[in-house]
Amino acid sequence: MAQFISDRRDIDFLLHEMLDTAGLAKKSEKFAEFNKKTIDLIVSEARNLAVKEILPTQKEGDEHGCVLENGKVTTPPSFKRLYDLFNEGEWLAMTEDPEWGGQGMPRTISSATMEYFNGANYPFMMYPGLTHGAGKLVEEFGTDEQKRVFLKKMYSGEWAGTMLLTEPGAGSDVGALTTTAKRNDDGTFSITGEKIFISGGEHDLTENIIHPVLARIEGAPEGTKGISLFLVPKFLVNEDGSLGEFNDVVCTGIEHKLGIHGNSTCSLALGSNGKCVGTLLGEENKGMKAMFVMMNEARLLVGFQGFACATASYMYAVNYAKQRIQGKNLLEMMDANAKAVPIIQHPDVRRQLLKMKALVEGMRSILYYVNYCADMAAIGKDEAERAKYQGLVEVLTPIAKGYVTDRAFEVCSQGMQIYGGYGFIEEYPMAQLLRDCRITMIYEGTNGIQAMDLLGRKLGMNKGKPIMDLFGEMQKTVAGAKEIPAIQAYAEKIEKALNKLGEVAMTMGQTAMSPKVLNAFANAHPFQDAAGDVAVAWMLLWRASISATKLEKAKAKDKPFYNGQIKSLQFFVETLLPMTMGNLAGLKTVSGAAVDIDEASFAG
Amino acid sequence: MAQFISDRRDIDFLLHEMLDTAGLAKKSEKFAEFNKKTIDLIVSEARNLAVKEILPTQKEGDEHGCVLENGKVTTPPSFKRLYDLFNEGEWLAMTEDPEWGGQGMPRTISSATMEYFNGANYPFMMYPGLTHGAGKLVEEFGTDEQKRVFLKKMYSGEWAGTMLLTEPGAGSDVGALTTTAKRNDDGTFSITGEKIFISGGEHDLTENIIHPVLARIEGAPEGTKGISLFLVPKFLVNEDGSLGEFNDVVCTGIEHKLGIHGNSTCSLALGSNGKCVGTLLGEENKGMKAMFVMMNEARLLVGFQGFACATASYMYAVNYAKQRIQGKNLLEMMDANAKAVPIIQHPDVRRQLLKMKALVEGMRSILYYVNYCADMAAIGKDEAERAKYQGLVEVLTPIAKGYVTDRAFEVCSQGMQIYGGYGFIEEYPMAQLLRDCRITMIYEGTNGIQAMDLLGRKLGMNKGKPIMDLFGEMQKTVAGAKEIPAIQAYAEKIEKALNKLGEVAMTMGQTAMSPKVLNAFANAHPFQDAAGDVAVAWMLLWRASISATKLEKAKAKDKPFYNGQIKSLQFFVETLLPMTMGNLAGLKTVSGAAVDIDEASFAG
Repeated sequence: MAQFISDRRDIDFLLHEMLDTAGLAKKSEKFAEFNKKTIDLIVSEARNLAVKEILPTQKEGDEHGCVLENGKVTTPPSFKRLYDLFNEGEWLAMTEDPEWGGQGMPRTISSATMEYFNGANYPFMMYPGLTHGAGKLVEEFGTDEQKRVFLKKMYSGEWAGTMLLTEPGAGSDVGALTTTAKRNDDGTFSITGEKIFISGGEHDLTENIIHPVLARIEGAPEGTKGISLFLVPKFLVNEDGSLGEFNDVVCTGIEHKLGIHGNSTCSLALGSNGKCVGTLLGEENKGMKAMFVMMNEARLLVGFQGFACATASYMYAVNYAKQRIQGKNLLEMMDANAKAVPIIQHPDVRRQLLKMKALVEGMRSILYYVNYCADMAAIGKDEAERAKYQGLVEVLTPIAKGYVTDRAFEVCSQGMQIYGGYGFIEEYPMAQLLRDCRITMIYEGTNGIQAMDLLGRKLGMNKGKPIMDLFGEMQKTVAGAKEIPAIQAYAEKIEKALNKLGEVAMTMGQTAMSPKVLNAFANAHPFQDAAGDVAVAWMLLWRASISATKLEKAKAKDKPFYNGQIKSLQFFVETLLPMTMGNLAGLKTVSGAAVDIDEASFAG
Repeated sequence: MAQFISDRRDIDFLLHEMLDTAGLAKKSEKFAEFNKKTIDLIVSEARNLAVKEILPTQKEGDEHGCVLENGKVTTPPSFKRLYDLFNEGEWLAMTEDPEWGGQGMPRTISSATMEYFNGANYPFMMYPGLTHGAGKLVEEFGTDEQKRVFLKKMYSGEWAGTMLLTEPGAGSDVGALTTTAKRNDDGTFSITGEKIFISGGEHDLTENIIHPVLARIEGAPEGTKGISLFLVPKFLVNEDGSLGEFNDVVCTGIEHKLGIHGNSTCSLALGSNGKCVGTLLGEENKGMKAMFVMMNEARLLVGFQGFACATASYMYAVNYAKQRIQGKNLLEMMDANAKAVPIIQHPDVRRQLLKMKALVEGMRSILYYVNYCADMAAIGKDEAERAKYQGLVEVLTPIAKGYVTDRAFEVCSQGMQIYGGYGFIEEYPMAQLLRDCRITMIYEGTNGIQAMDLLGRKLGMNKGKPIMDLFGEMQKTVAGAKEIPAIQAYAEKIEKALNKLGEVAMTMGQTAMSPKVLNAFANAHPFQDAAGDVAVAWMLLWRASISATKLEKAKAKDKPFYNGQIKSLQFFVETLLPMTMGNLAGLKTVSGAAVDIDEASFAG
């Protein structure tokens, strides 16, 4: 069977025609070796691994799921071999510091590898993904000793990592957590508490699992101000690096979930036998700050997870629509002898596919661009440039997570629709993609939390500089596109949307600072929708600008691709952007209906 | 645990304050005995059965599912007793002719019972629901002999019914079916073919299953014109009504589906041993016509199924949001001593709940109204009135199925979001509701097919009289509401939307008759979205008109309800209707992007 994870032509367009990834090599010594040829080789290798090794485990991961018996979690049978293979390829820390076993690659390149890997089996990819995130915490906040003991083994994948944050009474409100840390004489801490929804909290892929744990030191303040971060291994580590005693981290249950069955979602009891010991990671009471440093990257990863489901769903849907013969062409309806045609000829199917295409291309662009900005934030020519790109990462992160996963789920549902009745049957791929995708709207901060982050923190950050920088980048694209006759009219429509978004952002921001603050936050999510839509429009315009310019001299084989970029733009501007404009018009009223309604007016 | 199927207060509002269901008794002798007291008794009985007997089987139905072994399908253990109980209550044919065992009730009343039953476990309800539909075919098209042998046993539920339509190569395109009927000397037909996706095609609830089967008589024309309908029992029936030989209808497989696990979805082989016999139901080659007669009712039922999931999801979400304590009230964010509050106090949660509320109320109104129109089509005072109401049923059916189930799925997803991480766990009710709901967008004609029906058949039907009648009803409500100060401004906005919808309908209709016909059909689904939105706006305005008028003199306990009606209207007009206006503005261009794009421009 052909692979339908992702679209290499479009990935190459992003990496080389839109973002000049190879150009990063000229900008910094750090990335000097990553020229175009090397980049292409890396992407091809990732693609091979994804198609040949990861994809074949996707369905088994879903059907077998994870099993808890006597405190041990067994992952799907194919996962262990795959996990080792993945680590042999040294993919886990490809963007990290070579000093600790990383490959030092630009994050922009990892966009492509993340897309392939996650599209092939993202519940599996959560194990290395979480290990990477936990390792990053150790790298950023660990003492030399903590790094020496843990970091290389985590970046190599030999030991896995997790993140212990959520508790039954502390989800979105992390500050409510009750896990405690009691100071011991030797400087370590005894940890006691219950954590839930821990992805990869217990499994059989590695001999040790390293848990960064949020907890409150006895006597520390309530709320987020009293939270510290600890490093708690499943097995203690002896001086020589060998494994010591079991550290009293007990898996008490795993969840039966709608999707991501291949990843174990665990309840963990820490110190229920009084024997769980951790070391402080970073400063006392600064645990939340440490989390925030990691959050942008973690949220972007979730954006990639959702997107990877959407792009796979789109690829499958296109293929199915080309193969599936059903119904006459509408123009031949009256011809009794007309033959049934592939459903891609039916206008409603084409509309659905084009909607999926435009959204997938828009989402891919946003995600890769955020990674590009992260690279530029690291290697920019001066402090100002680095700060500018870091600001873009900040302001785009809620869109890359919240907006993208909202749209990704929509795309997965649309893909199911194209399969008709077959879409509902688990034998076909669409159901799993829909199920797996759904959690991305919830975890790592629900999309409502993302919208609050955008409105409450990101809009006003640094006196609004990041959002103004973002608008500046968008305006640049618009100005350029207005010079290109083939897309000028679309550019003008997007300019109007951009201006309107600016106005609404101002109104929303002001309302958020006024006594009507609740009204502002009641509209935060629709505002995020609008901002994301405009970001997609911007990206499609950027893509079409390049494509329209290249079209005339393009090789025959490239023309459908470039023409397709202009069609995505046309479709978005003609059919979806008007709804965005409507949404923006509605947002101007900053409706207070949801705030004013009496609780007793809801049913029940 | 409290029951969260549906909202009795709102159901009563529909039945008695909006639609004057009891007034039907005065309009026709046929409904004479269904006064308000009787209606309320029926609804209460349905509610009791739903809560006490049906709801407890919902989760087991999902988890156990159906099992195929040796050609026999076993349903979830609790279903057999429930099925018998349901039939003892004589609910299956409550709206049908007493001559054949029905109860002769108005369909408007059955709206409430359908809502309760389907909200409690709709995969179970599919067994009686399909039996009812099959019985209806026998009643409408059967010979006296067919009715004598089959009908009472079907309407009593003693024997079950199905509908054998889909084949591997004939889904949306029914005309492509290949099942054949060979004429026998005794006037019966030998049937041979393979059918798939047959809901309740085989199960252990009844001793016999009666299959209406679409097939082509040897020598009949190709396409839909050569399709006839046959009655094919699982077991032949002897002269005395006892069961005869097995009729060679073999279940060859059941599907593993995303949802509705409690209902068996079967592949059936007919006549693979050459021994399957059926009798013609209705006229030769008029099978499609017979199907169409049944289709409105079947599609409305699917609308109810999707809606029932949505209303349950809304009820659970409201309850959860009142119980779940998480995070401070936004106004107390800066107060270190502030306590965490129920999440219903958070503006984004309220917005989600109010969106769900407005949509659920709008959908409920549409569905009940269609049933009311069906009653009026039967008992209207003269031919003109009956035809008018039948026209309203026709034009509203694609909205009641297509639009309602699209929105219902959205509501179910929103409900899951309110549960946060718990929404993704199968232990809680939201995942099943989302999964079960999803098929309603696909079966009984995908929602794309509904949109084509609306644009291609219903708009132009009878020279546009039904759609003009619908607009007329909407205008009446608008005119009345403009006289009520509290909602006048909303009425004016809805009037604008209605006028715009009229304009767009004209443009779309004209385009559909032009060489740009494909462009029109590429926009059929967004047009259905807009028409459905306007229908919801109309219904919310109607509700608010009644509520605003009653508010002053209302009892204290009713005030939150009536106020809530005005809030639903305000919310819809301020936040959702602007997007509808945007959609309508986009539709005016009748974008051809999806039609013009080169197939090679799609990925893959």
